[in-house]
Amino acid sequence: MKSWIMRGRSETLTPQSFELVDAAPPPPAAEGELRVRTDFISLDPYLSRFMKTWVGDTPMWSEGDVNGRTVATVTESRAEGFAAGDRVLVTARWQAENTVSAAQAQKIAPDIDPPSLVLGILGASGRTAWVGLHLADLKAGETLLVSAATGPVGSVAGQLAKRRGLRVIGIAGGADKCRYAVDRLGFDACLDHREPDLEGRLAMAAPAGVDVLFENIGQTGLDTGLSAINEKGRIMLCGLAQHYNDEAPMTLSHFRQLLYRQVRLQGFRTADYLDLYPAATAELLAGVKEGWLRYEEQVTDGLEHAASAYVAMLRGEGIGKRLIRLG
Amino acid sequence: MKSWIMRGRSETLTPQSFELVDAAPPPPAAEGELRVRTDFISLDPYLSRFMKTWVGDTPMWSEGDVNGRTVATVTESRAEGFAAGDRVLVTARWQAENTVSAAQAQKIAPDIDPPSLVLGILGASGRTAWVGLHLADLKAGETLLVSAATGPVGSVAGQLAKRRGLRVIGIAGGADKCRYAVDRLGFDACLDHREPDLEGRLAMAAPAGVDVLFENIGQTGLDTGLSAINEKGRIMLCGLAQHYNDEAPMTLSHFRQLLYRQVRLQGFRTADYLDLYPAATAELLAGVKEGWLRYEEQVTDGLEHAASAYVAMLRGEGIGKRLIRLG
Repeated sequence: MKSWIMRGRSETLTPQSFELVDAAPPPPAAEGELRVRTDFISLDPYLSRFMKTWVGDTPMWSEGDVNGRTVATVTESRAEGFAAGDRVLVTARWQAENTVSAAQAQKIAPDIDPPSLVLGILGASGRTAWVGLHLADLKAGETLLVSAATGPVGSVAGQLAKRRGLRVIGIAGGADKCRYAVDRLGFDACLDHREPDLEGRLAMAAPAGVDVLFENIGQTGLDTGLSAINEKGRIMLCGLAQHYNDEAPMTLSHFRQLLYRQVRLQGFRTADYLDLYPAATAELLAGVKEGWLRYEEQVTDGLEHAASAYVAMLRGEGIGKRLIRLG
Repeated sequence: MKSWIMRGRSETLTPQSFELVDAAPPPPAAEGELRVRTDFISLDPYLSRFMKTWVGDTPMWSEGDVNGRTVATVTESRAEGFAAGDRVLVTARWQAENTVSAAQAQKIAPDIDPPSLVLGILGASGRTAWVGLHLADLKAGETLLVSAATGPVGSVAGQLAKRRGLRVIGIAGGADKCRYAVDRLGFDACLDHREPDLEGRLAMAAPAGVDVLFENIGQTGLDTGLSAINEKGRIMLCGLAQHYNDEAPMTLSHFRQLLYRQVRLQGFRTADYLDLYPAATAELLAGVKEGWLRYEEQVTDGLEHAASAYVAMLRGEGIGKRLIRLG
């Protein structure tokens, strides 16, 4: 069986940072465990931090193994409440089969179709957008700027903010993404960060300034947003994808605006707001079922493409949720 | 009569950025105005922003004149409620006499002795410390780090935090200031930022990490505090004195901690929290009268020394509130 590992610690992630090696198949399930077959692997920017340092929230990283959130099918259950054939959400290694603790597995309701939605809009990505907006104290009529606007978090944040009566401006890389944000997601405007004078174009698109910045990227979004931020503006610091791939200091031209405009910047991690999950999930599920919440999945077939697809995602290629499909 | 003006716009403030010129004496007071004689001029870091750009909260800056908060004695009153001999707090030009609108003058209670205290511990500096701590949601037992620890804001913030049951660590420039912070202000520790390995020394002084950073300076304090910030830490961004004197981008090595530790960073301007003034003033006045709140005034005699004293203050020379005394 093939399994992805990290070739070594690296300053910058490239496809060569990863290696697909032969590994022993996982052991049969012991008491309280499940043996599962991987269906989808979620490609998430935050993983890159652990990929580089091998220090993550599970001991697995310390060995250089690569793991992340997956959708899998139970092939053998030795845990109450799970049976062969169940679809589950588990954190597992990037390989075709895993043996995992049932305690960390979440069963996926059969009416969620495709089940990969729990890795994106009906999972961490969608909830992150919901929680971030909740913490931002939005008011109808305000202007929200969101970076990585066509990504799995930004696209949901922008659509939910529109529904809450805000003017929504996205930042994305490339004309195609910007067109998608306006035409498909319904944003009021979207700025291509690869074109010059991003701040000048924001000033045109947001004549009343920016009240809330939903930041997923880092320096580009922060400096652009700060250039137009209003008095008592809020910055929800959700991700720093632009900076996960190195340890370089971050340089901001407009940091002083945090003081001059009395801005509140709030770093947050969605998993710390469990009490908000039911309300978040209910609205997201309704949005998908009723069709007013649009999403995109970009699926690459084959475990062997996981490393190159991951690095491409980090570079900003693709729209929406990036997934590897197996089998 | 002599008056200070700005010689021109400048990237960096030096004594040569200022010029002491001959000026006409101010006109007699018209209806609703006071003619006043300057007693004390307050040297405040935030003024440097206006000194460089000539764009401030009063139209005076646009002409290149220098103005700021002063304590003055009324010599002629054409406004109800004011009489010759009253001591007032006014924003006025850096010169011996001014004619000002009574609407912007605040009478100083005769029991405030010396009256210059309204420029520092019983004025904006003390209230800023009080308001910042209020916004930080302090809990007894937490650790607070404060930069510019012996300055007029930092020294009060640290003492009030001690009184609220926190462990208080200061950052200051030089061994003398650090000794003063520990021996006179009662801080638990004070770190000299001119010595090497500030982060390592903070780790020793704050073994349980930093819960609240009261930031007056900029990059030095922010990076040091962020290196040890705890989960859900708070940063009260009160001033950026280190960065008022230039427009260069700010570079932070540990910015990512804002996300990883779920930090809340709050820029604030004291004047926006008028509703907190009565409680702030009551506690500060009690602290001064009862003797548990220590403060230092550093007075330079003579209008002609204002520019050099101002620039020395920006460079971090001196302890406590820096003032120019006239007459």
